[in-house]
Amino acid sequence: MTTAGEVTAFLRELVDAGLLLDCGVPGVFGRGPLFEDIVERFDAYVTRVGAPDAPKRVRFPPVLNRQAFERSGYMKNMPQLAGTIHSFEGAQKDHQELMQELEGGADWSHRQRITDVVLTPAACYPLYPTQKGELPAEGRLFDLLSYCFRHEPSEDPARMQSFRMREYVRLGAAEDVRSWRSRWLDRAQEMTRAAGLDAHIALANDPFFGRTGRMLAANQRDQELKYELVVPIHPGGEPTAIMSFNYHQDLFGGLYGISLQGSAAHTSCVGFGLERIALALLKKHGLKPEQWPKSVYDLLWP
Amino acid sequence: MTTAGEVTAFLRELVDAGLLLDCGVPGVFGRGPLFEDIVERFDAYVTRVGAPDAPKRVRFPPVLNRQAFERSGYMKNMPQLAGTIHSFEGAQKDHQELMQELEGGADWSHRQRITDVVLTPAACYPLYPTQKGELPAEGRLFDLLSYCFRHEPSEDPARMQSFRMREYVRLGAAEDVRSWRSRWLDRAQEMTRAAGLDAHIALANDPFFGRTGRMLAANQRDQELKYELVVPIHPGGEPTAIMSFNYHQDLFGGLYGISLQGSAAHTSCVGFGLERIALALLKKHGLKPEQWPKSVYDLLWP
Repeated sequence: MTTAGEVTAFLRELVDAGLLLDCGVPGVFGRGPLFEDIVERFDAYVTRVGAPDAPKRVRFPPVLNRQAFERSGYMKNMPQLAGTIHSFEGAQKDHQELMQELEGGADWSHRQRITDVVLTPAACYPLYPTQKGELPAEGRLFDLLSYCFRHEPSEDPARMQSFRMREYVRLGAAEDVRSWRSRWLDRAQEMTRAAGLDAHIALANDPFFGRTGRMLAANQRDQELKYELVVPIHPGGEPTAIMSFNYHQDLFGGLYGISLQGSAAHTSCVGFGLERIALALLKKHGLKPEQWPKSVYDLLWP
Repeated sequence: MTTAGEVTAFLRELVDAGLLLDCGVPGVFGRGPLFEDIVERFDAYVTRVGAPDAPKRVRFPPVLNRQAFERSGYMKNMPQLAGTIHSFEGAQKDHQELMQELEGGADWSHRQRITDVVLTPAACYPLYPTQKGELPAEGRLFDLLSYCFRHEPSEDPARMQSFRMREYVRLGAAEDVRSWRSRWLDRAQEMTRAAGLDAHIALANDPFFGRTGRMLAANQRDQELKYELVVPIHPGGEPTAIMSFNYHQDLFGGLYGISLQGSAAHTSCVGFGLERIALALLKKHGLKPEQWPKSVYDLLWP
């Protein structure tokens, strides 16, 4: 079977078993009771592993201040993945015309105006603007979770348009931030070993756009700014990243005025792709958790 | 103090206490640890009250199939509140022009194209299309929770643009659906009484758009299709709806091909505005749950 065939077969299996619900758009799915339970159980496991660091738990909605987003560089680096939010602000007559277009199957999108918010592309983006100012000497540590959006319609259930990312974000001095990321690279490998997944760490780069993007990607790799923990969800194809470990140097510190002893603070984030982790577990151990290896089951249903 | 002044003062109090985080856009806030805890505690209380009915727990992402959304009538009834999602699909040259516009402070939104998804306006919208076909005689009952979007930028923390709605949705025969809604009207009043809130049930209507909207609203009230449980969060102003109880007759059954013994099924939903409930509790009992009336504290932290 081709990889594409395998991907489609796995998706069909998940939908038939009620783990995912088809919403009629590639990469958009409802989550059945068991799928949601696996996501929440792994999320709770992440909480247990991260608890000794006493992170501050903050939650943002899935939308982000457009001005802050524009400042982030995302539209420069990955414009193809972003989602802006548009609304109707017209009067009665415009509305009548809109409805004629909609009912006649014509394009009505030209009546929508861009709003002050965009969809959150990664769970940590809304955090940085709220941290403007001087950090305490020891820096800060946050625990985040958000639905994120990436416009990449795909038949691969491991490439959803709307998915949850759990994150820890460290802000502080360069050496503190880097050693924190190293500790999570170790922890993450222990976590996936305990979960019975064949994962390994790989140097990685963001999916930068276009020709100049290739240079950005090479630079990111040279400086080892991004690692991923990857798992072979689809045996014939590329391995899938289920966690990522990003060191931003002083990029966000500089962009959003977050300082430490007068200089731009350094930041790093560790992200867990919760839907992808659930899919990796289901692919490796089968669709019935009560038949998973006992140590894996006990890890998530302690 | 004017009502507008009270609203602003309450918001400032919440931000100063770290309950909400300012994101720089009206109606978009981060949730601090305590605010999130109150939301989750009330959500768990809803789960306990609803558990005897054995609902099926399904979760959808905060985005919805645009085709299904267009069919729903939302753009006809409440176009001003909807959010459509647009993405960049251009090539290298378009991207260079976009970046020139963005960096020069010009409008770059004309480069975005409408995608196949919109933001979810109410937690139950994604469910109906998945229920196409014949229902079992006893109907079905679902438990949903989703971030919802409404484009109504406001300084009132009780009118967020992005907020969570917990819902139960009943599909079935008209009489089953109606008696189910009646039972929740009773339960909801018991719940708010136990939570120490001065709530009461009110006949209501959706915020329909424009001139024809006034007729739709009157019709909805005449037929008692919508009730709300309202609380005076802002003493001088209109009471705020924290729960709603909607009977759709066979509207969604007809639109999405959900049938019962050959006819369009009836549907009803009961929605809990989780952020509004947290705000109502904080306004009534103060910003420190450990100082709330003991019975209220014990109800949520059992």
